[in-house]
Amino acid sequence: MNTPIRLGIAGLGTVGVGIIKIIQQQANLLANRTGRNIEIAAVSALTRHKDRGVSLNDVVWENSPDALAKRDDIDIFVEVIGGSEGVAKQSTKAALDAGKDVVTANKALIAIHGQELAEKAEARNCSILYEAAVAGGIPIIKTIREGLAGNQISRVLGVINGTCNYILTRMEQDNLSYQDAFNEADELNYLEADPSLDVGGIDSAHKLAILSAVAFGTQPDFQSIEVAGIERINIDDIHAAADMGFKIKLLGVTQCDSDGLIQRVHPCLVPATSPLGQIDGGTNMVVIEGDSVGRLVLQGLGAGQSPTASAIVSDICDLALGQRRPIFGRPSKSLIQARRNSHERSAPYYMRLSLLDQTGALARVTSILAENGISIDRMRQYGHSGEYAPVLIVTHKSLRTPLNRALKALAATKDVVEAPIALKIELP
Amino acid sequence: MNTPIRLGIAGLGTVGVGIIKIIQQQANLLANRTGRNIEIAAVSALTRHKDRGVSLNDVVWENSPDALAKRDDIDIFVEVIGGSEGVAKQSTKAALDAGKDVVTANKALIAIHGQELAEKAEARNCSILYEAAVAGGIPIIKTIREGLAGNQISRVLGVINGTCNYILTRMEQDNLSYQDAFNEADELNYLEADPSLDVGGIDSAHKLAILSAVAFGTQPDFQSIEVAGIERINIDDIHAAADMGFKIKLLGVTQCDSDGLIQRVHPCLVPATSPLGQIDGGTNMVVIEGDSVGRLVLQGLGAGQSPTASAIVSDICDLALGQRRPIFGRPSKSLIQARRNSHERSAPYYMRLSLLDQTGALARVTSILAENGISIDRMRQYGHSGEYAPVLIVTHKSLRTPLNRALKALAATKDVVEAPIALKIELP
Repeated sequence: MNTPIRLGIAGLGTVGVGIIKIIQQQANLLANRTGRNIEIAAVSALTRHKDRGVSLNDVVWENSPDALAKRDDIDIFVEVIGGSEGVAKQSTKAALDAGKDVVTANKALIAIHGQELAEKAEARNCSILYEAAVAGGIPIIKTIREGLAGNQISRVLGVINGTCNYILTRMEQDNLSYQDAFNEADELNYLEADPSLDVGGIDSAHKLAILSAVAFGTQPDFQSIEVAGIERINIDDIHAAADMGFKIKLLGVTQCDSDGLIQRVHPCLVPATSPLGQIDGGTNMVVIEGDSVGRLVLQGLGAGQSPTASAIVSDICDLALGQRRPIFGRPSKSLIQARRNSHERSAPYYMRLSLLDQTGALARVTSILAENGISIDRMRQYGHSGEYAPVLIVTHKSLRTPLNRALKALAATKDVVEAPIALKIELP
Repeated sequence: MNTPIRLGIAGLGTVGVGIIKIIQQQANLLANRTGRNIEIAAVSALTRHKDRGVSLNDVVWENSPDALAKRDDIDIFVEVIGGSEGVAKQSTKAALDAGKDVVTANKALIAIHGQELAEKAEARNCSILYEAAVAGGIPIIKTIREGLAGNQISRVLGVINGTCNYILTRMEQDNLSYQDAFNEADELNYLEADPSLDVGGIDSAHKLAILSAVAFGTQPDFQSIEVAGIERINIDDIHAAADMGFKIKLLGVTQCDSDGLIQRVHPCLVPATSPLGQIDGGTNMVVIEGDSVGRLVLQGLGAGQSPTASAIVSDICDLALGQRRPIFGRPSKSLIQARRNSHERSAPYYMRLSLLDQTGALARVTSILAENGISIDRMRQYGHSGEYAPVLIVTHKSLRTPLNRALKALAATKDVVEAPIALKIELP
């Protein structure tokens, strides 16, 4: 047996406790796999005296994550505090400065400061592993970085926020309003402290920025992601989509080619029969397209104590085995600053208009679409109570610019009550 | 840049050529990922002068894989010859004896001789990597061995032979007979030289034996796998299954618990709406159940030049980075010889009987089932031409022993024309 590997765990929330449970319950398995005992040397958290359902006897308590990060008796700094700034960032840097390896579940930190941290780590021959930051228990980072090492990746897309998928699934399956489904998710504690991180698409965007870097060898670039959330999706949209053979999912999509990089997070329509159309509830799914492997699909639990801890422990085992790679799979100095792809691709769109129920309204609306070169594939107007009618349209392929022009013109008419919605139809 | 890593490739068939293509076309990517140039130092194949569409200038040619395996100027012996015995096994051992690492796509070799080879390799501190041996381009070995390192795995099941899935899909979607679908697969060169390896379930069993070892820490035990093929599945079965909300898939299933290990490959019914029920054609899917990660599903191309080569190149990159683990994820000396689980689990079954169209036949058949304690959930008898009628039955949960007793009794009657079929209904 080699020397034990010693952990310093910063943060004893759901995930931190989950890690301790696995380390304690699977001690023999982990020792057999790595040839080393994995020891929890020290921990740090806000409140010390609190029953967390795990024994922390003979574990040193540090009041500050910073102090924990620098301890001589730890090999790996496990950061499960969260947040892109403040103590999480500071203690992670402190750990790297002290020559420690870092394992983190912090998607915001890596999405926003990944390049800086990777350069610091690689300069010190330290590792930062972050499998748990994207899609919970699904080993998506390892899959792209290692399992597809010989592939030119062209596109990665997926449902990477379980909470949004849960809300959309509940609306679809139980005919709930967005607000009711949102409230239910809230009661179940599925939502982040700031719910806009989930329903606003920010959490998905953090994960997407990381996926882009690993897939394409580009510097993580959270700022350039186009982000839209699911707040405006209503039950009419869900029904109309289903009616036309689609489901509405909050997708993260990243594509890279000679035109540059395009990253977007937004609610899209996907064919109900496609893999992405078939995942329900809190499940995550990531689809990877590589030139040799073709299309690879991974599906699993994207959040929760055990799945997230499972990913953290996998990273810890890699380090215990002394396995090191560049942080994003290629040396951070070699990561390119991708030019943002401004080349528009045409796609079919789904539109929802709320039309005042007055003579000629539909005629005026459809002529505005025609004037802007938007041609209609399918249109539905459902029976309605109240003075306006939802009109639901699927367009033929169109570029976004003329579409936006049409949307603007429509919003300006007296016929259209609220700002129209337009969702891209993402084809596999 | 570190020293280059030098390959000796034994076998220049589809996969061998695919490896060369990736190594040559992705040279920069691979060098960036691994920090080393990957060089093809020498090759060996049966016929030398043959246009394979790749340039092999300044690559040394060895006539014997054995001689190739021992060359001083190679670091990794890449075995893509195939077959569990003969030259593949011999040259692999020669490579290990010479202290070379081995990368192979040879499922039969690892399934049957994996324990012996792993002990030899570990004794010499050499690696054997075999990602390409199971499920083609899907990084399933890496996922279980590394990505789920902290999980107690309870079950792994999947569709791991694309050819059988192609045949079953063609029957289902285009109403082809088994023989027509088989012939089509044959014309497309989807079948192994010995087709029984595919349709007889042997190929799936080879892969399953490997999955078991990696998932459970047991010695690969191909011999103890219960194997049945798809040869007797006919279009009536496909229709009846669809009619009742199921699809027929050739599944490999391995489960391990305190009762021991049970490994089986056989055609099963799965719910049409389950992930396994939704994969068509040559696609593979593997479902892994772990105590922390929950259920993880991987889907991708299970065969073909590029996907298989993609897996081989991933293994080569791991070795180029100097990453070593025990061959099956735990030291081979620690792998246990699993007791075969003889504890029967009850399950619902699908049965097909060919009944002579004579008065009282159905009464006699159903009473035989009753006498053996097999109770009927659903039964269908379809209109038929000719003198016998297909009768299709879904039973309530039953143990296999009384079911086999009933099948035997049924076969002995004058009412039942050919040996009845009984397929397990595998619930997710």
